[in-house]
Amino acid sequence: MHTYGYGKESKSGSMKPVQFDREAMRDGEVAIDITHCGVCHSDLHQVNDDWGNTVWPCVPGHEIVGTVKEVGAGVSKFKIGDRVGVGCMVNSCQQCDYCKSGNEQYCQGPRSCTLTYNGPKKPDGTNTYGGYSTGIIARQEFVLKIPNAIDSAHAAPILCAGVTTYQPMKHFGLKAGHRIGVAGIGGLGHMAVQIAKAMGATVVALTTSPDKADEIKKLGAHEVIDTTGKGAVKEAALSLDFLLDTIPYPHELQPFIGLMKTDGHIVVVGNFIKFPSFVPADMVFQRLSLSGSLIGGVADTQEVLELCAKHNIRPEIEIIDPANIEKAFKRMKEEDVRFRHVMDLSLLKGREGEMANAARFGAPTRGEPN
Amino acid sequence: MHTYGYGKESKSGSMKPVQFDREAMRDGEVAIDITHCGVCHSDLHQVNDDWGNTVWPCVPGHEIVGTVKEVGAGVSKFKIGDRVGVGCMVNSCQQCDYCKSGNEQYCQGPRSCTLTYNGPKKPDGTNTYGGYSTGIIARQEFVLKIPNAIDSAHAAPILCAGVTTYQPMKHFGLKAGHRIGVAGIGGLGHMAVQIAKAMGATVVALTTSPDKADEIKKLGAHEVIDTTGKGAVKEAALSLDFLLDTIPYPHELQPFIGLMKTDGHIVVVGNFIKFPSFVPADMVFQRLSLSGSLIGGVADTQEVLELCAKHNIRPEIEIIDPANIEKAFKRMKEEDVRFRHVMDLSLLKGREGEMANAARFGAPTRGEPN
Repeated sequence: MHTYGYGKESKSGSMKPVQFDREAMRDGEVAIDITHCGVCHSDLHQVNDDWGNTVWPCVPGHEIVGTVKEVGAGVSKFKIGDRVGVGCMVNSCQQCDYCKSGNEQYCQGPRSCTLTYNGPKKPDGTNTYGGYSTGIIARQEFVLKIPNAIDSAHAAPILCAGVTTYQPMKHFGLKAGHRIGVAGIGGLGHMAVQIAKAMGATVVALTTSPDKADEIKKLGAHEVIDTTGKGAVKEAALSLDFLLDTIPYPHELQPFIGLMKTDGHIVVVGNFIKFPSFVPADMVFQRLSLSGSLIGGVADTQEVLELCAKHNIRPEIEIIDPANIEKAFKRMKEEDVRFRHVMDLSLLKGREGEMANAARFGAPTRGEPN
Repeated sequence: MHTYGYGKESKSGSMKPVQFDREAMRDGEVAIDITHCGVCHSDLHQVNDDWGNTVWPCVPGHEIVGTVKEVGAGVSKFKIGDRVGVGCMVNSCQQCDYCKSGNEQYCQGPRSCTLTYNGPKKPDGTNTYGGYSTGIIARQEFVLKIPNAIDSAHAAPILCAGVTTYQPMKHFGLKAGHRIGVAGIGGLGHMAVQIAKAMGATVVALTTSPDKADEIKKLGAHEVIDTTGKGAVKEAALSLDFLLDTIPYPHELQPFIGLMKTDGHIVVVGNFIKFPSFVPADMVFQRLSLSGSLIGGVADTQEVLELCAKHNIRPEIEIIDPANIEKAFKRMKEEDVRFRHVMDLSLLKGREGEMANAARFGAPTRGEPN
């Protein structure tokens, strides 16, 4: 499958038009014409090698929606023309307890799960390329059905931002009636606000951008706290049962710890890099817990798509031309996105002539079909 | 009740002989002649004001064992001559959900729980004095029965070191077959090793004192890892389901995070002061949890006393003269205790003449009897 897209060959430089061939379809796989791909904050971290684990070349994108172009032998769940999605993973062992219980993201198989992009196959290191591209092929177990009620552009961010926030709220026991704080109201946070409300919680949005307050309340937040104002933070002491921390860069944990009730639970989904030092006294005195959580499994991704369809939850999006990805990254860095960019990949279809001169990348992998 | 003991009037200076009167007994209370009191690391922190919350004067001690001297009206659980204990608390509201469920340490009443010492009563600030003394009075709800099988000196450390480690292992779901790491093999840690083994877990002791290895194995640890040796720590990567961190001073969390399996749980019971910065990547990628936990409620304290009786679990103790408390603190600081000092308070009975010149402290409080 000859594919056009946007990627980077090394840490330096900027995103450029690229082309590559995806390996021919195998049994049990689905080939997809990509129409939309969300721009996740992790894409920016990855192409900047902020986590020190980027494999080059890098073609980001794991909030992929498109149309089934072709199905391999044995594919029963999908037919040509279906509207489908691919989220953060394209493969896993399918055998271990984690895979069997719908937690493929924690696959304990010898290769762990294969991420949709920057997912080097063990042991040979061949890389995966994601959805900043015109097409993708994935095994049917990792392909999602897009509910009729949700258009493709709005479905895309649910595949990462939606499930990454929904999964830990479900797993760590957010309950109707709980007061949940959502820290960081960006791509992930603005989905978390809506999903937590649909789960019956009282939602307190915590933001350093008080100018977003009206927009955040429109999303459904019951309260908005400007965390740059010490008074409001102090007033909210000991008031939260749960806190979802979606802030995608190093930040202090201490102010959030003080907000938690006894037995409160803080879950971190956005920051892999660093917490400055913290004083655990309140964690001990209030029996608080702090957990990390990584994306979500396939079944939970399908579940959150259905939940969004049912409760009319939609990301706030701005559709962009893939050619403007560097500008989008710049605005993301400046926190000037309300709240998610989604690429329209169909635009590249009309540019096959000019894309023919794009840099050629080697063929990516996508793991074994079993 | 005229009482002799050891305490400090201010942060500077050293522990001195003191005397004070405990208020007369009220209905529902039990007066106890103290025979033994364990020396807990928190006693040292408290008299040094390491946590910045010490109320002066300070008479430490919350691992108290003695004999019932007198019972107040309405006391049904105890009679004169019974061997009894008092742990970390002497009072709480008895009305809130936490008190009713045996979690008095997290009492949500207006005064929270009243600690056995350094437990200033809200709002007047009158302080409590602990068990480095010849007698104490407490309401019967906070008095423990000492099982016949356990002598008084050995029972004392179970009342804090025992329950502080047992409670979170029970609460956060340590199961038979789990591999648990115990970090810091001192007063708390050496009890945790024995209790975790009795709960059916495989116990890996983590210590910076490899010279303790033989003693730690005698306690029942299945493995001992010298955490100063990078090789052994690396070999143990991703091997633990649970980790109980009993280290009572600031330390790095990072080496422990790397030891945890997916869904692993680290519980901190010893350090209230500070963790230097940490990288939460593995917490996210492995869905790890980090919780704090404070001592344990009365029912769990009774439960761990029975568990120790049944499984022949005993602290390793060295009995000291209360007059040598400064020397004991010094050895504790130098990590030269195997593994708990226990004061013999009966020695003060023979010194009433010389103690008559001890500094006089004001009467302590012990909260309301309801």
